[in-house]
Amino acid sequence: MDQSAIHFAHRFDNVSGSAIREIFKIIAQPGMISFAGGNPSLNALPDRLVSDLAVDVLAQNGKAILQYGATEGYAPFLESLHAYVADMLKCEIPAVLPVTGSTQAMDLLCKAMIDPGDTILVENPSFLGNLQCMKLYQANLVPVESDGDGLLPDDLEAKIRQYHPKMLYTIPTFQNPTGKTLPEGRRKRVAELAGEYHVVVAEDDPYRDLRYTGTPLPSIKSFDTDGWVVFLGSFSKIISPGLRVGYMAGDPSIIRKCTVGKQSTDVHTANLNQAVVDQFIRRSLLPAHIASICAEYGKKMKLMLDQLSAFPGGVSFTKPEGGLFIWAELPENISALDLLTRAIEKKVAFVPGTHFCVGGGHENTLRLNFSNSTEDQIITGMGILKDLIAQTIR
Amino acid sequence: MDQSAIHFAHRFDNVSGSAIREIFKIIAQPGMISFAGGNPSLNALPDRLVSDLAVDVLAQNGKAILQYGATEGYAPFLESLHAYVADMLKCEIPAVLPVTGSTQAMDLLCKAMIDPGDTILVENPSFLGNLQCMKLYQANLVPVESDGDGLLPDDLEAKIRQYHPKMLYTIPTFQNPTGKTLPEGRRKRVAELAGEYHVVVAEDDPYRDLRYTGTPLPSIKSFDTDGWVVFLGSFSKIISPGLRVGYMAGDPSIIRKCTVGKQSTDVHTANLNQAVVDQFIRRSLLPAHIASICAEYGKKMKLMLDQLSAFPGGVSFTKPEGGLFIWAELPENISALDLLTRAIEKKVAFVPGTHFCVGGGHENTLRLNFSNSTEDQIITGMGILKDLIAQTIR
Repeated sequence: MDQSAIHFAHRFDNVSGSAIREIFKIIAQPGMISFAGGNPSLNALPDRLVSDLAVDVLAQNGKAILQYGATEGYAPFLESLHAYVADMLKCEIPAVLPVTGSTQAMDLLCKAMIDPGDTILVENPSFLGNLQCMKLYQANLVPVESDGDGLLPDDLEAKIRQYHPKMLYTIPTFQNPTGKTLPEGRRKRVAELAGEYHVVVAEDDPYRDLRYTGTPLPSIKSFDTDGWVVFLGSFSKIISPGLRVGYMAGDPSIIRKCTVGKQSTDVHTANLNQAVVDQFIRRSLLPAHIASICAEYGKKMKLMLDQLSAFPGGVSFTKPEGGLFIWAELPENISALDLLTRAIEKKVAFVPGTHFCVGGGHENTLRLNFSNSTEDQIITGMGILKDLIAQTIR
Repeated sequence: MDQSAIHFAHRFDNVSGSAIREIFKIIAQPGMISFAGGNPSLNALPDRLVSDLAVDVLAQNGKAILQYGATEGYAPFLESLHAYVADMLKCEIPAVLPVTGSTQAMDLLCKAMIDPGDTILVENPSFLGNLQCMKLYQANLVPVESDGDGLLPDDLEAKIRQYHPKMLYTIPTFQNPTGKTLPEGRRKRVAELAGEYHVVVAEDDPYRDLRYTGTPLPSIKSFDTDGWVVFLGSFSKIISPGLRVGYMAGDPSIIRKCTVGKQSTDVHTANLNQAVVDQFIRRSLLPAHIASICAEYGKKMKLMLDQLSAFPGGVSFTKPEGGLFIWAELPENISALDLLTRAIEKKVAFVPGTHFCVGGGHENTLRLNFSNSTEDQIITGMGILKDLIAQTIR
C-alpha cells in the first residue's frame, strides 16, 4: 500500500502508542529485573482456583455462559457485584456495569461524556493508559496541582472555574504512578466541588484493597450526594489482569449511556470471565486472597523503600501505604531516560516518569514497581540503580 | 442528579441503543419462540469441550494466562490464528489482531479511520450493531444499491465518485439481515475499486463457515492487491459468542493503528479466551464442529424456507445458501412492527426489518433467524406468523 494514500482519523494525530507497553517488549528479555509495568506477582495469580471455578460454572450454566449475554452484564455477576460494590464503598450504588477491565470503564465514560476539545482535569503525573484514552477522545487535558497528599482542592476549584471541565480524572488511593493517597477531607471536598460545579468525577480506584499500612479511607463516591462521581473498579490487581474484568458504578443515566456505548464496543464482557469473578465473590474467596497478596507486596514495598533510603543524597521518593508503585525524583540534572538506557544494559528496567506527565518534562523522575520482583531481585536491581545514580552524581 | 445538568457527548445525539438488544429482553419471557437475535443453537455451544480446554491451558500456562498480556495478542494464539486466517482466505495475511469479538474489530477500525462527518458506504439493510458503531463515530452513512445478489458494483463506483468515502462496510457472505451472498465477480470488483479509489473496505464475514448448500466463494480480501481490504472475522458463530473472541486481518499500518487504539479500549483481549480458541485451532477441532453445526442449521433453514413457501401470496423472501437469517418482505401495506406486537401476544418474536435500514422505512420487512429454534418451534412459530399475516391481508 502507498502509505501516503491512507489517512487515519485525527484523534491519532498526537498519539503514537503507550510507552509502557513498548517498554514491556524490551523487558521481556530473559534475566531482566523489571521495576517497570504494574504486573501482579505470579504468586498472586490463582491459576488452579480459576481453573476449578471455570469447570464449576461451565458445568452448572455452560450453555448460557457460551451464548450471547446482555450488555448489562451476566445476571448472577451483576447481582453479586452490585452487593459487593455497595458493601465495599459503604454507600448506595444505584447502577453498576461489568466491563472488560477498568480501562474499558474509562473508555466508555469518555465515549459517553467527551466531545473533542472538552476539558478533563487530571493529576500530573497520572496513569499513562488513561491519559492516552483521553487524548484519543481529543480532550483538552489540564493538570491540577498536587502536594505530597495528592490533589489540592483549592487549585481544583480554581481550575474548574477557569476551564469549565466536563470531567476530573483521579486515582485517589496509592496513585499510579506516585503512590500518593488523597486524605479523607480532600475526598469529601472533591465530591462537593463536583456536585456544585457539575463536573463528572472518574474515581479510578484499582489499588484500594492493596493497603499494607495505615487506615482505609472512604471513597470519593461515598461523599457523593448528587451522582456526579463514577467509581471505576477492577479485579485485575486482586484476582487477575488477564481475565479482563472490571466495573463502573454510579448514576443510572450515566451508566445507561455507557451501556449503549458498550453495545457497539464489544457487545458484552465475556460471560465466562464474569462467572469466574462472580464465584470469587459468592464463595467469599477475596478477603483471604487479598490478605495473602498484601502480606507479600507489603514486605516487598518495605524492602524497596529501605533500599531507596540508602540512595545518594538528592534522591527523594514517596512513601506509599499500599499499591504497586513508588515515585522517585533524582537531582534535577540527572535524566531518568539516560539512566534507563544504562540500567537496561545491566538488566534492570523501570519507567521514566516523563511518560506519565502531561506535556512531558520531569525527566529526573521515575516510577518503580515492586510487586512483580522477588526480594532478591529488589535487592540486586536497586543496588544497580543506586550505583548508576551514584556514578552520575559523582 | 438534576438530569438537565448533565451533557452527554454529541456522538449520542441520534443513538438511543440497539433495538435488537431491547427486543432480547422481551423475548427472554418463558415460552417465547424467538426468530429474533442471531444466537447459535444451544447444541452448537461446546460447553464440555471449552471446560476441558480451559483446564488444559490453565494447567500448562496458567500464570501467563492470568497475567497482563500483549495488546497484540496471546502469543500462541497469534501464531495459530495467523496461519488459520491465511489458510482460510488462501492469500497472504501481513498482519492479524485478536480482538474482543468482531464487533470490537469494527469499533477499532472506525476509531483508526473515521472522523466525524466522514462518509462510510453501507449495504442497506445492514447489521444493526455496526450501524450503531458507525453512528457513534458520527460517520455519514450512505447506502449503496443492491439486487438479489448484494451490492451493485456500478452503483458502488458512482457513490465512491460522488461521496469520496473513507470506508465501505460490507457483509459479503450470507449477509445480516438479508442472507444474500455477493458473487465472485463482484467481490473482485469491490477489491479493485477499493485500490483504485483508496477506500478502506471493512469485509465483515462472520458467517462464511455456515454454508449449507452451494460452493464457497473467495473473500474480497483474496482479491486485494494493495492492502485496502480489512477482513473482520469471528469465532462467535463457530465456537461461542459468549467467549468474545474475533480478529481483524489486513495491512500492517492499519492493524498497528487499531492496536494502539485497543491499548486504551481494553488493553488486550482476555488471555484465557484466546487460549481456548487457540486450542480449537491447534487440535483441529473446528472442521468437525462446523460440519455438525451446518448439518443442524441447514435442516432448520430448509424447514423455515419450506414454511415460508406456504405463506400467502405477496410475501416474498430470500433463499440463502447459509448463515443465520432469512429476510422476508410483506405486501407494502402490512407493517412488520404491528405484526410483531400481535406475534408477541402469541409468543412469537422476530426483528422488524426497518431497524436494519439506514434512515428507517421498509416497514413491511422482517428478519427471521432459524438457528436458535427447534424444528417444532419453527413449524409452530411460522404457522402463527402465517395465520397473522393471512388475517391482515384478508
